[in-house]
Amino acid sequence: MIADFFSIGVDFGGTNLRVGAYSPTAGLLESIQIPTRLRDGRDAVVADMCAGILELRERHSAQYLLKGVGIGSAGPLELPEGRLRNPPNLPGFDGLELRAEVERVVGARVAVENDANVAALAECFLGKGKKLGIDSLCMLTLGTGVGGGVILHSKIWDGMNGMAGEVGHINIYSDGPECGCGSRGCLEPLASATGVRRRAKELIEEGASPGLAALGKKCPDFAPVEISELALAGDSDAKKIFEEVGRALGLGLAALINTLNLPLYIVGGGLANSWDLFSPALFEELRYRSYVYRMTDPAQPETAGSSAAKTRVERPELGTEAGLLGACILPFNVFHDGDALSITKL
Amino acid sequence: MIADFFSIGVDFGGTNLRVGAYSPTAGLLESIQIPTRLRDGRDAVVADMCAGILELRERHSAQYLLKGVGIGSAGPLELPEGRLRNPPNLPGFDGLELRAEVERVVGARVAVENDANVAALAECFLGKGKKLGIDSLCMLTLGTGVGGGVILHSKIWDGMNGMAGEVGHINIYSDGPECGCGSRGCLEPLASATGVRRRAKELIEEGASPGLAALGKKCPDFAPVEISELALAGDSDAKKIFEEVGRALGLGLAALINTLNLPLYIVGGGLANSWDLFSPALFEELRYRSYVYRMTDPAQPETAGSSAAKTRVERPELGTEAGLLGACILPFNVFHDGDALSITKL
Repeated sequence: MIADFFSIGVDFGGTNLRVGAYSPTAGLLESIQIPTRLRDGRDAVVADMCAGILELRERHSAQYLLKGVGIGSAGPLELPEGRLRNPPNLPGFDGLELRAEVERVVGARVAVENDANVAALAECFLGKGKKLGIDSLCMLTLGTGVGGGVILHSKIWDGMNGMAGEVGHINIYSDGPECGCGSRGCLEPLASATGVRRRAKELIEEGASPGLAALGKKCPDFAPVEISELALAGDSDAKKIFEEVGRALGLGLAALINTLNLPLYIVGGGLANSWDLFSPALFEELRYRSYVYRMTDPAQPETAGSSAAKTRVERPELGTEAGLLGACILPFNVFHDGDALSITKL
Repeated sequence: MIADFFSIGVDFGGTNLRVGAYSPTAGLLESIQIPTRLRDGRDAVVADMCAGILELRERHSAQYLLKGVGIGSAGPLELPEGRLRNPPNLPGFDGLELRAEVERVVGARVAVENDANVAALAECFLGKGKKLGIDSLCMLTLGTGVGGGVILHSKIWDGMNGMAGEVGHINIYSDGPECGCGSRGCLEPLASATGVRRRAKELIEEGASPGLAALGKKCPDFAPVEISELALAGDSDAKKIFEEVGRALGLGLAALINTLNLPLYIVGGGLANSWDLFSPALFEELRYRSYVYRMTDPAQPETAGSSAAKTRVERPELGTEAGLLGACILPFNVFHDGDALSITKL
């Protein structure tokens, strides 16, 4: 009998570092979370990360064999090197050889990926993809920014150097709001938490949105969830903000559907909790903009299409754990040793 | 010693039917062209196609073994069935089981693909991809419409039912000109021959474009090539039309580059002959819109990127033969029998 394998996954963001131990048969064995000490510099952060990995390896190596370490990191990243490249949420980390440094310290195989890509991988193998029996998908993560990950036939599509899946920078309105990437009118400033707050502030400044103005006065640091509550209470300006988010997402998804023709697109991240507020406009725009979607629309009767192919646009199955879980399953997805345990057994 | 294989390829468009016999070692052995008899109905067209295939098989079977038949067809197509689905340029062909019907008549294995996809396949194996040693690319074909094909690791990316690569329907300007797909502002009405003529007519109607007005008077059925000649002669309105084409292409390519991160994008088709007129605006827009492009810009010195990954946007290597050649190599790309001859030997 062969011993069971386990993996160690790291969810590496600008605020927190989470490290987990994972077994395909037993699931998440344990996880630890520490703040990302950005102010103490990259060496301190890498040391914290490695200490967490070594701690979990020590604790579980009696029972399991280590398959490898997976890191889901804020990007951009250059792959296969696993090198950070001017990451906006990790100031001072440009050029860090993340994979090589962690491999050197922990002495195990390390796979590094973009955080949005590992979240998509988790949804594919442990979430919506598993539930629907689908092995290709694109996941959009609506957070502070808009991240994206593309999974084609059970593998992350990295592109030539790890920069694929930057769907948050698909252009939606050529003259739209400025984006951190240097362009304007990208999906990111229109369908992110940052974008929702910016839009609310604009409407407040325009002076014709009493509900939003009252919110801004009561709570100057309001978050999308508060605008969402206002919308659910019937405020038309707050509702309009989410409708605009839906239209932008519909346009972005139309480009992806027309290009990739995948069976599943997942819209996740914190802002996706407002699904009921933005999804009607999203689907309306999608039906208008994408004939590929219209020909594969799950809401249409079978007679609309002679094939059974359907394009699903849905919410994720996993919650905030997706990033950590995706980092944990990454080693099983990329390291193949001819051993009996592979990703297909997850 | 094994006998050499050959294939028969069909380039099936709304105007012409071209059938070719091809050997990976000897190249195109022979090709025939007949008009597509759309007025005589689909049965007549399929009969013509099968007669051409049988004729070439008869002529070359003494010397070669038939690997299979490849058909590049105007779309949309449903795959893997090889069924036409409301093809705008093949009226009356909706629902035609193209693969099954041709297989039944000719008694050989038939692979059916979208015409833009087989052109991309040809560029990958016999054109620019071969020249550069690249196995993944996206090709845009600027003709009456805007077609697209995506090749990932030497295989056509069909998506779930053959509708991937419809990059002509990426939205560029949400309020732009109407598109045949039912949306508006897609790349197709902005960067096709049809779009260039429409834009010239608009400028003539606006009454402030004397050069274009003179062209329209002299030659009411003017083509893009005549607008291009006017632009090359210095007419600022004609130049503006191609600059707008370049901006639209830059926006569309930015979406593809940010999503797919491929090493090569090819801009082909008749309108691409005006490359010198539209490409400056294309690259200007691309550098503005895509940070993935900026990080992999071949025009930047190596110091701009720590990796050697470069995103190339170039003209095709093959000419109008690409569609027929792609149909010819399709059987070698999709039929694997464990025989010694595979696509890698092309």
